[in-house]
Amino acid sequence: MRLEHGLVFMSDTRTSAGVDNFAVSKKMFSWQVPDERSITLMTAGNLATTQSLISLLQERSVTEEDRDPSILRQPTMFQVARLVGATLREVISGSSPTGQTSDDQFGASIILGGQIKGGKPTIFMIYPEGNFIEITDDTPFFQIGETKYGKPILVRAYDSQMDFADAIKLLLVSFDSTVKSNLSVGLPFDLQVYENDSFSCDRTKRINADDAVYQAITKGWGNALRDAFQLLPSYRL
Amino acid sequence: MRLEHGLVFMSDTRTSAGVDNFAVSKKMFSWQVPDERSITLMTAGNLATTQSLISLLQERSVTEEDRDPSILRQPTMFQVARLVGATLREVISGSSPTGQTSDDQFGASIILGGQIKGGKPTIFMIYPEGNFIEITDDTPFFQIGETKYGKPILVRAYDSQMDFADAIKLLLVSFDSTVKSNLSVGLPFDLQVYENDSFSCDRTKRINADDAVYQAITKGWGNALRDAFQLLPSYRL
Repeated sequence: MRLEHGLVFMSDTRTSAGVDNFAVSKKMFSWQVPDERSITLMTAGNLATTQSLISLLQERSVTEEDRDPSILRQPTMFQVARLVGATLREVISGSSPTGQTSDDQFGASIILGGQIKGGKPTIFMIYPEGNFIEITDDTPFFQIGETKYGKPILVRAYDSQMDFADAIKLLLVSFDSTVKSNLSVGLPFDLQVYENDSFSCDRTKRINADDAVYQAITKGWGNALRDAFQLLPSYRL
Repeated sequence: MRLEHGLVFMSDTRTSAGVDNFAVSKKMFSWQVPDERSITLMTAGNLATTQSLISLLQERSVTEEDRDPSILRQPTMFQVARLVGATLREVISGSSPTGQTSDDQFGASIILGGQIKGGKPTIFMIYPEGNFIEITDDTPFFQIGETKYGKPILVRAYDSQMDFADAIKLLLVSFDSTVKSNLSVGLPFDLQVYENDSFSCDRTKRINADDAVYQAITKGWGNALRDAFQLLPSYRL
């Protein structure tokens, strides 16, 4: 999500191959060069694909001789998105003999955000085909994975002038609606806040199910919804 | 949706073959024999399939010589569900050489509800394969079609002791969340209320976009959500 003050990222950690086989797996990854760039990436889709993608990006960013092409060398966020898209496409086509499409079982989608000195903070959504779209003022947030349950509250309560605390609350309410409706999404959540021109990905937190504020929000939201519902006019037939 | 007092049905009326080709089409159909049975059916999925299904059920219920098997002759709602399921399967397999599955492009899903004298009011959800599940106290409502956006509020605000006016309000809020998020769902809505042991499907209404109560609900709900959201604690990182 992009705000006037910066970017906010949140991901769940549930990975599953059917309801009888699920585990906790981090889906948010960050790279930074102090005072120069901060890049955050979140994944959805086939875990083998997204792990390969991250490993390729990591290797290419740490081993000196393999550093080209590296996301730490690209001059702009747009070029980083192109590189991540090309790498994603390469990974998927390696597993999938018929090429790569959004419907593919090896598919994955990526949210990529951050800032490189000289540019503005921005966010991209990258498709399995390797192409991507950039966030705009008209579409100030992206969702990947199980997006539908949590969308209505985002549409209604988002405000670009929110402070980070309210934005995190909004993301928690959105994720909470999804968690209550779909077993493939689950706690803990990973959270990261990026303040404009900080070039730092250090403001992170893992939010567990027993987090006191999360508990207050999840319980409070159910009651608040019911109270709000009572205030609406009934429909006499 | 099943309540202690009876059943409530709501359907939208948008049919589309892509965003460039959409129209208004009724998706709710009813049959009654006064003092003996009331049957209501709602459809989702391929329009050619659902129209054929309804035509077959209609023909078999009006022409005397074709009246067997007819949904007006079945002794129980369970037998009606079996007949509708078999008819649905027959229609789909006529268009689809590979058989019928939930993923099929000719697929359709059905919600079937009502009451036949000697039995209780009940609701079934019928799959494209022709099999079906019945509503229970644990699962007091069914959704078909674009179900995800509108589910969280149903889960949170449903109460079996609601009166009809509140239940209609709840369904309107649920549909409204979906309409705001997905172009394939649109007004007007068709509404029907079935009171236990009335054996009548006459309490119906078509709710248009300019309906005053609907307008109050859709505007009020957005504001109510934002107000409720403000009351929750913020998350300081």
